Amino acid sequence: MQSFQPPRRILMGPGPSDVSPRVLAALARPTVGHLDPAFQDLMEEIKAALARLFNAPGHACVPLPAPGTAGMEAALMNLLEPGDRAVIAVNGVFGGRMVDMAGRAGAEVVRVDAPWGQPVDVAAVEAALASGPAKVLAFVHAETSTGVRSDAAALCALARRHGALSIVDCVTSLGGVPVDAAAWDADVLYSGTQKCLSAPPGLSPVAFSPRALEAVAARKSPVRNWLLDVSLLMSYWGGEGGRTYHHTAPINALYGLHESLVALFEEGQQAVFVRHARMHEALVAGLEALGLEMLVAPEHRLPQLNTVRIPEGVDEAAVRARMLERWDLEIGAGLGPLKGQVWRIGLMGASASPWHVRLCLTALADALSAQGREVDLDAALAAASERLG
Amino acid sequence: MQSFQPPRRILMGPGPSDVSPRVLAALARPTVGHLDPAFQDLMEEIKAALARLFNAPGHACVPLPAPGTAGMEAALMNLLEPGDRAVIAVNGVFGGRMVDMAGRAGAEVVRVDAPWGQPVDVAAVEAALASGPAKVLAFVHAETSTGVRSDAAALCALARRHGALSIVDCVTSLGGVPVDAAAWDADVLYSGTQKCLSAPPGLSPVAFSPRALEAVAARKSPVRNWLLDVSLLMSYWGGEGGRTYHHTAPINALYGLHESLVALFEEGQQAVFVRHARMHEALVAGLEALGLEMLVAPEHRLPQLNTVRIPEGVDEAAVRARMLERWDLEIGAGLGPLKGQVWRIGLMGASASPWHVRLCLTALADALSAQGREVDLDAALAAASERLG
Repeated sequence: MQSFQPPRRILMGPGPSDVSPRVLAALARPTVGHLDPAFQDLMEEIKAALARLFNAPGHACVPLPAPGTAGMEAALMNLLEPGDRAVIAVNGVFGGRMVDMAGRAGAEVVRVDAPWGQPVDVAAVEAALASGPAKVLAFVHAETSTGVRSDAAALCALARRHGALSIVDCVTSLGGVPVDAAAWDADVLYSGTQKCLSAPPGLSPVAFSPRALEAVAARKSPVRNWLLDVSLLMSYWGGEGGRTYHHTAPINALYGLHESLVALFEEGQQAVFVRHARMHEALVAGLEALGLEMLVAPEHRLPQLNTVRIPEGVDEAAVRARMLERWDLEIGAGLGPLKGQVWRIGLMGASASPWHVRLCLTALADALSAQGREVDLDAALAAASERLG
Repeated sequence: MQSFQPPRRILMGPGPSDVSPRVLAALARPTVGHLDPAFQDLMEEIKAALARLFNAPGHACVPLPAPGTAGMEAALMNLLEPGDRAVIAVNGVFGGRMVDMAGRAGAEVVRVDAPWGQPVDVAAVEAALASGPAKVLAFVHAETSTGVRSDAAALCALARRHGALSIVDCVTSLGGVPVDAAAWDADVLYSGTQKCLSAPPGLSPVAFSPRALEAVAARKSPVRNWLLDVSLLMSYWGGEGGRTYHHTAPINALYGLHESLVALFEEGQQAVFVRHARMHEALVAGLEALGLEMLVAPEHRLPQLNTVRIPEGVDEAAVRARMLERWDLEIGAGLGPLKGQVWRIGLMGASASPWHVRLCLTALADALSAQGREVDLDAALAAASERLG
């Protein structure tokens, strides 16, 4: 057993995205104790930065000490108890995962499906909410499995109108497109660090509204999860009343998240969104010039997660393998019913740059050529460059 | 908001312990995708190293993507379902936490208390097991709140004799004193990375026996936890059948764990145990020369976690604050009924070195002097040096 020296990859899959040198360097700073006064200052800064990022000034915002899925589980497990009714919109893998979790919480689930590649069906959700009182409406803002953005504002408004608490999966949206808890009047939002925040995977930023915390306080049964019990978590992350020991925070991972947030606010949120949009337009122009088609209609596309239809006769796994082997460039495969149907190309955080766009088009053209497809790389690069300016 | 530059502390509390430069450097290696072939090789090496460390060649061993508490929750949530009876030994904070979690799993808990500072009462546990069939016996091998080691071999044997599955909390023991799943015939063991493994907090190595996995497969109800569902976790960590997507592994944290395991096996497990024992003897000799007393009887002491009685009239918080401010050295306070009664001095992993012992005695003598106590530092250092050789 020897020290592990990872290859230097270029990460353009559905996450993790490229982690910048400054964030990697932050991970390696000396570990301090989780009760150290210096660490408590860091915790306060992270809480404030997350509240700003979610635009959730009145929410309790903390990073959970586990991957993005923990945010989903914390949202559902804290808000739902046996007998509660939950309306859950499903238009990809992650909506389906919510249904599974809500069942484990003991809830009665009303599932509202939409085709993969389409946004959540707002009218169908409204019908489900109107059919009987629901405690929760849960949906995925940015479906990582399909590259589709749903209308969070409309869905949260529906939840409010029907007296349900809203749960919004922002794993792939946060830091890539606007997330606005205040404007949406959303209750629980959660994300991951390895997408548009470009920190390593392992943490899950969450935001709980005062309404959501009241609902947790009013539960009849204990939360079926100790690590993700939001009352215990919020006591650990402290406030005026000091901190109560719960778990031991993942110190160095939090150094990384903090640094990624510093970088994001240095660039400016609006500038970050504009960059993601511009890289997306350039990539799509280049892909189309290579003769490829996008899965999702333009108005529903996520700039940070691009699902590309695999042309007939192409061995999609061979394409990905060649891109990885010859170019050290990772793109993602399809999941579930989209397996073998699409590639997923991420332009998230530090991976949303002009050279990523150009390199991806170049590597993909090379891999398609190796499959006997005729592609015009020059045209693709020219089309991308036109959008990159 | 600016980049966070932590102070360089010397960590001699109950964890996290000092993280060595080589492990910190590993954290900062470039992030690869969690499906990357290179990363899969890393996963296999970590699984094998954990099986060696737990001496659990037949167990399924993986690191959970969350702090040590997640190991406890995974053990209890997977093995217990509503109606199951669990005997849980409590001789400190962490036994009490197990009781809370088992209740959330819906189990009927039989709690067997022992005084804080004493090991688990084997006879009382036997009586509880004899009083009716239990599915699980859970106990803490090394109580971090008291510094006590319990008799894991005897307790696991009792569980076997009474047809119960054993759950052994090894958070503070693994890598500091022998843990031997095979010799104990133990079912589920779990630990944390921030104690004797000297990696940052955030991961929880676990080992599940074939018997334990069969019990999970035979459940009547789903596990009340998705992230920690051991069937899903083990599919993600793969085997002959390949890997099934579950969460996104915390890549860089796993680089750190891997490097800490490489370092441990380079030194040799037996050498590591001898080092911990020797540092402990030196520290205790020095503490006694300073006129201090240990909480725990010699035969039950953990070398890696030393609980020291606070002398009457000493402001214990002022002592810790001075040690942190003047020496950048962190020791721990007491928890629960031991709050204000003891300090907890960790000698874990990279913090179990001669200079840590000498520096701790020096800083403590300084802080006690500042409280008006007469202490003989020269005698303390001489006593320690005699054991250090």
